[in-house]
Amino acid sequence: MSEPIREACGVFAIAGNEEASHLTYLGLYALQHRGQESAGIVTAEGEHPHAHLGMGLVADVFSEEVLNQLKGDRAIGHVRYSTTGSSNILNAQPILCEYRRGWVAVAHNGNLINTLELRGKLESEGSIFRTATDSEILIHLLARSPQLDFLDALEECLAKLRGAFSMVIMNDQYTIGLRDPLGIRPLSLGKLGDAYIFCSETSALDIIGAEYLRTVEPGEMVIITKNRIESRFYYKQDIADIRRKQAQCIFELVYFARPDSYVYGRLVQPARENLGRVLARECPTEADVVIPIPDSSISSAIGYALESKIPYQQGIIRSHYIGRTFIEPSQSIRDFGCKIKYNPVRSVLEGKRIIVVDDSIVRGTTMRKIVKMIRKAGAKEIHLRIASPVWMEPCYYGIDTPERGRLIGATHTLEEIQKHLRVDSLRYLSIEGLLQAVGGTEEEFCTACFSGKYPIRWSGQALEPLSKKEVEAEKLLVHVEEEPVENPT
Amino acid sequence: MSEPIREACGVFAIAGNEEASHLTYLGLYALQHRGQESAGIVTAEGEHPHAHLGMGLVADVFSEEVLNQLKGDRAIGHVRYSTTGSSNILNAQPILCEYRRGWVAVAHNGNLINTLELRGKLESEGSIFRTATDSEILIHLLARSPQLDFLDALEECLAKLRGAFSMVIMNDQYTIGLRDPLGIRPLSLGKLGDAYIFCSETSALDIIGAEYLRTVEPGEMVIITKNRIESRFYYKQDIADIRRKQAQCIFELVYFARPDSYVYGRLVQPARENLGRVLARECPTEADVVIPIPDSSISSAIGYALESKIPYQQGIIRSHYIGRTFIEPSQSIRDFGCKIKYNPVRSVLEGKRIIVVDDSIVRGTTMRKIVKMIRKAGAKEIHLRIASPVWMEPCYYGIDTPERGRLIGATHTLEEIQKHLRVDSLRYLSIEGLLQAVGGTEEEFCTACFSGKYPIRWSGQALEPLSKKEVEAEKLLVHVEEEPVENPT
Amino acid sequence: MSEPIREACGVFAIAGNEEASHLTYLGLYALQHRGQESAGIVTAEGEHPHAHLGMGLVADVFSEEVLNQLKGDRAIGHVRYSTTGSSNILNAQPILCEYRRGWVAVAHNGNLINTLELRGKLESEGSIFRTATDSEILIHLLARSPQLDFLDALEECLAKLRGAFSMVIMNDQYTIGLRDPLGIRPLSLGKLGDAYIFCSETSALDIIGAEYLRTVEPGEMVIITKNRIESRFYYKQDIADIRRKQAQCIFELVYFARPDSYVYGRLVQPARENLGRVLARECPTEADVVIPIPDSSISSAIGYALESKIPYQQGIIRSHYIGRTFIEPSQSIRDFGCKIKYNPVRSVLEGKRIIVVDDSIVRGTTMRKIVKMIRKAGAKEIHLRIASPVWMEPCYYGIDTPERGRLIGATHTLEEIQKHLRVDSLRYLSIEGLLQAVGGTEEEFCTACFSGKYPIRWSGQALEPLSKKEVEAEKLLVHVEEEPVENPT
Amino acid sequence: MSEPIREACGVFAIAGNEEASHLTYLGLYALQHRGQESAGIVTAEGEHPHAHLGMGLVADVFSEEVLNQLKGDRAIGHVRYSTTGSSNILNAQPILCEYRRGWVAVAHNGNLINTLELRGKLESEGSIFRTATDSEILIHLLARSPQLDFLDALEECLAKLRGAFSMVIMNDQYTIGLRDPLGIRPLSLGKLGDAYIFCSETSALDIIGAEYLRTVEPGEMVIITKNRIESRFYYKQDIADIRRKQAQCIFELVYFARPDSYVYGRLVQPARENLGRVLARECPTEADVVIPIPDSSISSAIGYALESKIPYQQGIIRSHYIGRTFIEPSQSIRDFGCKIKYNPVRSVLEGKRIIVVDDSIVRGTTMRKIVKMIRKAGAKEIHLRIASPVWMEPCYYGIDTPERGRLIGATHTLEEIQKHLRVDSLRYLSIEGLLQAVGGTEEEFCTACFSGKYPIRWSGQALEPLSKKEVEAEKLLVHVEEEPVENPT
Repeated sequence: MSEPIREACGVFAIAGNEEASHLTYLGLYALQHRGQESAGIVTAEGEHPHAHLGMGLVADVFSEEVLNQLKGDRAIGHVRYSTTGSSNILNAQPILCEYRRGWVAVAHNGNLINTLELRGKLESEGSIFRTATDSEILIHLLARSPQLDFLDALEECLAKLRGAFSMVIMNDQYTIGLRDPLGIRPLSLGKLGDAYIFCSETSALDIIGAEYLRTVEPGEMVIITKNRIESRFYYKQDIADIRRKQAQCIFELVYFARPDSYVYGRLVQPARENLGRVLARECPTEADVVIPIPDSSISSAIGYALESKIPYQQGIIRSHYIGRTFIEPSQSIRDFGCKIKYNPVRSVLEGKRIIVVDDSIVRGTTMRKIVKMIRKAGAKEIHLRIASPVWMEPCYYGIDTPERGRLIGATHTLEEIQKHLRVDSLRYLSIEGLLQAVGGTEEEFCTACFSGKYPIRWSGQALEPLSKKEVEAEKLLVHVEEEPVENPT
Repeated sequence: MSEPIREACGVFAIAGNEEASHLTYLGLYALQHRGQESAGIVTAEGEHPHAHLGMGLVADVFSEEVLNQLKGDRAIGHVRYSTTGSSNILNAQPILCEYRRGWVAVAHNGNLINTLELRGKLESEGSIFRTATDSEILIHLLARSPQLDFLDALEECLAKLRGAFSMVIMNDQYTIGLRDPLGIRPLSLGKLGDAYIFCSETSALDIIGAEYLRTVEPGEMVIITKNRIESRFYYKQDIADIRRKQAQCIFELVYFARPDSYVYGRLVQPARENLGRVLARECPTEADVVIPIPDSSISSAIGYALESKIPYQQGIIRSHYIGRTFIEPSQSIRDFGCKIKYNPVRSVLEGKRIIVVDDSIVRGTTMRKIVKMIRKAGAKEIHLRIASPVWMEPCYYGIDTPERGRLIGATHTLEEIQKHLRVDSLRYLSIEGLLQAVGGTEEEFCTACFSGKYPIRWSGQALEPLSKKEVEAEKLLVHVEEEPVENPT
Repeated sequence: MSEPIREACGVFAIAGNEEASHLTYLGLYALQHRGQESAGIVTAEGEHPHAHLGMGLVADVFSEEVLNQLKGDRAIGHVRYSTTGSSNILNAQPILCEYRRGWVAVAHNGNLINTLELRGKLESEGSIFRTATDSEILIHLLARSPQLDFLDALEECLAKLRGAFSMVIMNDQYTIGLRDPLGIRPLSLGKLGDAYIFCSETSALDIIGAEYLRTVEPGEMVIITKNRIESRFYYKQDIADIRRKQAQCIFELVYFARPDSYVYGRLVQPARENLGRVLARECPTEADVVIPIPDSSISSAIGYALESKIPYQQGIIRSHYIGRTFIEPSQSIRDFGCKIKYNPVRSVLEGKRIIVVDDSIVRGTTMRKIVKMIRKAGAKEIHLRIASPVWMEPCYYGIDTPERGRLIGATHTLEEIQKHLRVDSLRYLSIEGLLQAVGGTEEEFCTACFSGKYPIRWSGQALEPLSKKEVEAEKLLVHVEEEPVENPT
Repeated sequence: MSEPIREACGVFAIAGNEEASHLTYLGLYALQHRGQESAGIVTAEGEHPHAHLGMGLVADVFSEEVLNQLKGDRAIGHVRYSTTGSSNILNAQPILCEYRRGWVAVAHNGNLINTLELRGKLESEGSIFRTATDSEILIHLLARSPQLDFLDALEECLAKLRGAFSMVIMNDQYTIGLRDPLGIRPLSLGKLGDAYIFCSETSALDIIGAEYLRTVEPGEMVIITKNRIESRFYYKQDIADIRRKQAQCIFELVYFARPDSYVYGRLVQPARENLGRVLARECPTEADVVIPIPDSSISSAIGYALESKIPYQQGIIRSHYIGRTFIEPSQSIRDFGCKIKYNPVRSVLEGKRIIVVDDSIVRGTTMRKIVKMIRKAGAKEIHLRIASPVWMEPCYYGIDTPERGRLIGATHTLEEIQKHLRVDSLRYLSIEGLLQAVGGTEEEFCTACFSGKYPIRWSGQALEPLSKKEVEAEKLLVHVEEEPVENPT
C-alpha cells in the first residue's frame, strides 16, 4: 500500500519459560510491523509483576539490562501503532493495575465500538481514566464485577464489550488469550517446550522456534495455569453458532499480516497470491510487465503475473533506511515524500505497458505521485490493478483509517479516480472475488470497509446491523486527517 | 548533610500567563533540588489539557518543541524525588485523569498516612490503581464524591486525607493550591503581572521575576479562576484554631529548602544561621576553625562561626559534576563514594582544631568517611556539631528516611556514635534550641523525627496523637534500606 | 547475499546549489546501503569550509540544525562501511585538512594497493597519519608536490596511486570528481538546474530530482569551477587506450549497486536480471518454484524464473527492523542470527522442488542455516543457483572480503560445498556467462575474485599483472575474521 | 568570577597501573572544571595504543564498556574547554598519530604564541593539518626531526616552541610530563603504588588516593619508563637560571585551579584567602557583611572577612543544575541569564551595607546584573572589591579571553566602571598586593593580563619582551566575541 494505514497493535504472551522477557522481546520484534509507536512488556515473577514500557521501536525500548530486570517465567507484551496527537507514554500497553483482586495486566489489539458508552457508565459510577486504551476499560469492569472468581468476572465483563478485541491478560495466577465473539482480530496459539504462547501473527512463533498449534477461536478464551491449559467459550452459545457468525477482518489478509504468518488459521501468502490471481481473471489487460508497490503488494502482484502469464518485475525499489527524524528538504524537490521511499527502475519501465498491482487505495495522494514517477521513467501505459475492492467506508474495529470524506473511493467514481491518478486504466477486485481469493464467506469475514455491511452487532440476544444513525454517530470518533484530497482535474 | 535524604517532591502552578509552560519549566528548575527522578507539566489550553512527563532532570525532560506543544495560559508542574525500586514513569506527576467531572490534574508534595486504608476502601469499591501516588487516591475520591460542585467535592475528599499534603490541582475551570490542616509541607503564593503562582519554595518565584505574596495557610485552599482569587478554609474550624495546632515540618528549615527561599512565610537563611548560633551557645568548644559540610550546612556553620568568633573556612570542596551514570572504580580505591563528591582542603585543616558543622546525621556511614578524610588531611582535633537534635524516629509525612533501626541516633548512645565516627567530641542541638533558633513553638512545628511526638491526628472531631500501635503499624510502610550500620568499634 | 560483505563507501558532491548540504544529505541517504558506519559532509561557503562528521546512519548523524550550519553552495559527502576494529570517528570522511595550498577535503571510494609503500615513504619524509584512510595519503602527497598549480599537483599525485579510487575533492576553488585509470569503482555525473553532481550511484540523483548525464570515465577528472565544467584525462594516454584496459569491478553489478542505479554508464537491473537468465540457461533444473534470497538476489531470481518459465515466488521474508543494538537471546534458540533476519513462507515451500537463487557465497555459514530453514518448512528438493562464478580470491580494491582461507569456494570443491550446505544440487554461473550477462568483456571488467586475474598494474609505462609474490604480500593486509568455516560433514 | 572565562584544558597521565583507563577517567573527572567541551583517553597496551575521544563531559564520553576496551597499564587523558565556533571532535585530545617512529600521543595544556610561524613553516615543507591543536604541531616537528633517538628529537622540537605548554606525551616506550621553560601552565607529579602520575592539578591525585610528590619544574621533562623515572632539563641552562626567570600564570591561583589543589608546588586555598586579606588591608570599607560571588570567590571573600572582621555571609545562592540544553525563556524575563545561575538571599542583604568580593571583572555585563539583583534585594550600599588587579590585557598563553577592546578594564576608567556597574564603590587589588598575597615575585609569575608585561620571550639565546608590534599581531589571533560592552551611562 503506497499510503500506509496502521493496525491497532500486536500482542504476545508466553507462560512457562524462564526467559519469558527475552522471548517476548523477540516476539514483539517479529510483530514490529503492527506498531512502531511504543512497546511494553509485563512479566510475572512468581506472583509479583514487573513492567517496562517505552516510546519507540522494540529494539530501542528494551536493553539487555532492562530485560534482565523483567524476571519471571510468564510475560505479556504489546506493540502500539503510531498516530499523531495521542502519542503518549501513558497509552503504551500492557496496562498494569492494582485493584481489589491484586494485580492484572492487559494488552489489547482491536477497537471497541461501545467505548463511549462503557466509559460514560464507568465514569458515572466513579471510575477515573488515565489512558485512552480499551484495556483500561476492561480492568475497570473487572474491578467492579461482583463475581468472586476471576474467570467468572472476566466472562461477565467480556460480555459487556462490543467491537474488536484480541487480548492477552495476565494476573498472579492466569495467563489468558482471547478473541471477541466475532473474531475480528487474529490471535494464534503456539508451544515452545512446555511453554504456551499467544501472538497476533505466527511470525512471532517462528522467530523463537516455537510450534504453531492453532488459532484461538472467536469467542474463545484460552487459559494457561501452572499445570494445565483450558479452553472456554465465554460467549454462551454453541461453537457451531459462532462459526456461522464471524467477522474476521479481511484486511489482515489483504494488507496487515506478514505473508509468512498464519492468521485465523490461514496462511497469508497463498491468500494474497490468490487475490492477484482472481484480480487477473477479473480484470485482464494486455501488458508487458507486472510490478508491485513494495513491500505489501508483492504476493498479489506475483499472483497476478502467474495467472496472466505476464512477466513479474521489480519496477520500483523501496528504501528501508527511513528513520523517524528524517529531515525534509525545501519545497524545491517535487514529490519528495514519495521519492525518499520509492525509486523507479527505468530499465523495467521504459517503453513498456505496465500493470501496477497495489493492495488498496486510501486517499490516492501517494499513488498519484508514484504514477507520475513511473510515467517519467518512460512507461508507455500504466494499468493500475487493486487487489481488493473499492474502499468506501471507514473501519471502527481497530484500523486507523481516514473518515469517509477522505476516502477517495467513497467520494469519487471509478472514472474520476482513474483521471485523478492519471492512469490508463484502473480496476478493483470485486467483493466476490475477494472472498473467493481468501476462500471464505461473508459469514466468516468482515468486509465492511468495502461493502458497508458492518459486522452484525453482538448484544447477547440479537445480532443486528448498526443503524445508519449509529454509523454516523460513530464517525464522530474517527480521527480526521488534515491533508485534503486533491481534486481530480 | 553528608548522607542525602530526599524530600517528596516540589510543586508549581501558574494561572493567567500565555507562557505558562515555559514559566513552569523555570519554576521546576528552581525546585530541582526537591526531586531529580522525574518531572512533569500539565497545561490547560482553554478547557483542554496537554501533558508531558518524563524521567530525569527538568532540563532533560523538556525540549523547546515540547514546551511549545504545551499550550495554554495555565499550568501545574511537579518534580519527583528518586528512590530505588519504584522508579517508574507511571509514578511521574502531575497525574492527569478523565472522569465524570471532565478532567483533573493533581500534583502532590507530602505523604498520606492513611494510604492503605483509603486505597483498600477504594479498591473494595472497584477502583483500580495504576500508580503508587497519593494524587491518584485523591482523584478516585473526587470521582466517587456525590457532591455536584467540584469545590464541594474537593472539600469533602480532603476531609478524608490524613497526613501531609501540599497540592496544586487544575481542572477545566480552577487552578488550586492547598495545604493540609497541619500545614506539614510548605506552599507559597506569588504574583507575576496578572498571573498567580503556587510553589513549594519561593526560589521558583525569583527565577521568573514574580513577587512573593504570602504562604498558603495550613488548611487553606486558594482558588484561582478567570476573574478572581478566592481563599477558603476547607477545614471547618476557625483560623485561630488552626494556627494553634500546626505541624509544619521543621526539617524544611534545617535541610530541605534552599536558603534563598521562603517556606511557611519565613526566610530559610536566617533560621538556618540561627541554628548554628544557638548550637554555638549550647555547645561551645575551643577550636581554630569552623567548617561546613557543603552545601547544606553552610548557613549554620556561618552562624556557628559568627557566634563563636571562630573563623569560618571552606575546609571541604564539593564537586558538582556528578552524573547519573558515573562509573565506579574497582574496590582498590578506598572510600571512593565519598571522594567523588568531597575533597579536603589541606591548608585549612592541617594542624588545626576543627569544628565540623553538619545539619544532621542519618546512618553515620558517610560522616565516618569524611571524618577520616579530614583526619588524614592533618586535623589535630575534630569536633562535630550537629545543627539539629538527635534524629531518632522515622518520618511518615513525606521524607524518605530509613526505618528506625537504621537511624544511628535511635540505636546508639551519644558516646557510641562519637566513638563510631571517631571524632574528638560530638554535640547535637537541643529540641528547645531548635525551636528557639527558628523562632517557633511546638504548636507550630512537627518535631517528630527528633521528639517522637508525631503530629496530632486530624479526624474532623478530635485531634489526638497516634497510638504507639499505629506508629508501629505505619512503620511497615517504611522502605528498609539494605546497607547496615557499621557497629562502632 | 545471505552473508553481507560491505563495500568501501559511497561518495557524493554537488557544486552550485544554495541547498548544497541538504541535497548532499539526501544523496548520502540514497547511498546508505554502501556504508552505515559513519557519514560526513564538508561544505564550502565562499572560500571557507564547514564540516560535520559522525558515527552511524545519515539520518542520525545530521540534524536540521547541523545542516543549516553547513552553509555554502558546494559540498562533498561520504558514507563509510562498518568493520569491527577500525570503527573510529577519526576515520570518518571526507578528510578536511589545512596545508600550504589552503584547505582541501577528500572523500574516497575504493582501496589503494600501494598504501604501505606510499605511507612508508611519506612517513620517512616526516608525514604523520591520524587516520587509516587513503584520502589522507592523497592529501599528504598534495602537500608535498612541488607543482604550483593545484590541478597540476593533483595530476602528479594521482600518478602515484595504485589501486581503486573514485574520489570527490573540494578546495576553495574546485569541486572535482575522478576515477582511477582502470575505473575500478563507479562514479557518475549529474545535473540539477545549474548545479553539477558526482555520485557513486545514480539513485542519489533520482532522490533529488537531478538528471543523469554520464559516467565519469576511467582516468578522467571532471573539474567544476564557478563558470565552467572541464574534463581532463590525467592519465596521459589517449582515451581509446584506456577504454581498452579497464577493470571495472563486476561485483557492483552482481551485488553492491542498487538495481535502480546506473554504474559505469550501465543500468544495474537488466544486468542483474541477465545474470539470472544466463544462469538458467547454463544450469537448468526441473523445479516448481524459483525464490530469491532477498533483497539482493531478487532481480537475478526474476531473470532465472523468466528464462526457465518456472514460477517466481517470495519464499523467504526479510525483516528490515534490525537495529544496531539488537539483543541476542540465549543459546537456546538455534540458528538465531538467521531467524532475526529471514523467515520462510511455508505455503510457497511445502512439498515443492525449490530453486534458490543467491548472488554469491562467501563462507557459506548463513546459507547453510537458510537451507536448513527452507528444508524445515517442507521443501522437497533444494537446488541452489549462484548468479556469479565461484568466489575464490579476495579483493584488494575496496571490498571487505575474508582472506582466501575463509572463502569456501577457495578451499572446497563444488561437491564438498554442496554437501556442506546440504542442498540437492549446487551450480554457479560461469565467468563467460557472467561477462555475457553484463554485456562486457575481460578488457572492461575486473573479475579477479572469480578468476584470480588481478587487474593489470598501471605504472605509467607498462601494464603488467601483479606477481604471485606481490599478491601474497598484499594478503597480509587483509583482515582475518574469526569465525571458522564449519567443516562439511 | 561572574563571567566565566575558561582555561585551555586539563591533562592527566599514569604509567604502571593495570587500571590505567579507569584511573585516568577519575583524574579527568577531578579536572572537569578545566574543560567541558570534549574528553579523551589514549592507553598503551604493551606497545599498542587504544584511543577514545568524545564531545561533552567526562561522565558522558566514557562508559564502562569503553573503559574496559581501553586496555593497558599506561594512559594519558585530556579535557578541553568549550568555545563557540571551533567545537569539533577533531580538536579533541589527546592527538594520536602514526609516523616514522611508530605512534605517539600528545595532550596539551596552554597556548603556543608562535603557532602561525611554526604551522606556516611546516605547511611550506608539506605538512597537513587536520586540527587546530598545538599538539599536532609538536607531532609534525617530531616527524621531521632528524634525531634518531626519540628523546633527543623531543628536546630538539620543544626548543622550537614558544609560549605556554604543559604536556603529557606517550609512545610505545615512554610516558612523559613536561612544562615549558617559563612554566606558564602547571603540572604536578604524583605516585600511586608503583605507578607515577602527571596532572594539571592535584585534586586528580586525591580522587584516586595517590600521593603528591612535587611540581614538574619549568623547563623540566620527567620521563617514565618501565624500570625508572628520569628528570631532564631539556632547556639547556642551569636550573638556578630557570628558577630566576619563570612566568607561571598567576591566574591559576586567582581563579582557575580548585582551592583544594596544589599548582606550582603551592596550595591554592591559602593563596586565594590571602588575596582577600591583602585586599581588605588595601581597600578597607565600613560595611555590615562580606559576600562572595560563588563559587570561585569564596576563599578570597572569607579572607577579606577574616581580615576586616566584617561577618562573612552567603548572600547569593548558585544553582548547579544548569545543563547544556537549557531553554531560554522569552524576552519577558529580564536579566534571565543571570537568574538561572544566581539568586540573592534577601535576609542577608536587606538593609545592609554589602561588600561583594569577586576575583576579577572581564566585560562587566554579568556583574552589572548581579549588582542590580543585590540592590533589588534591599542592599543599602554595595561595595565591590576585586581580588585581583584591573584586567587590562588579553592573554596569549592559554586563557580564552576577549580581545583588548572587550575588556572593560582596558577601555574604561575606574570611575566609569563604577558608574557602569552602579556600585557605591569599586576597588581592585594592586599588582604588588597580588604578588604579596601569593608570596611570589615578578620573576616567578606572569602578570601580563594586569601589567602588560608579557613574559620574556625564550628563543635559545636571548630573553626579550615581545615588541608592541608582535603583541598587536598576535591580537589578530584572539577570538572576538560579539556581545558589546554596554556603555556606562
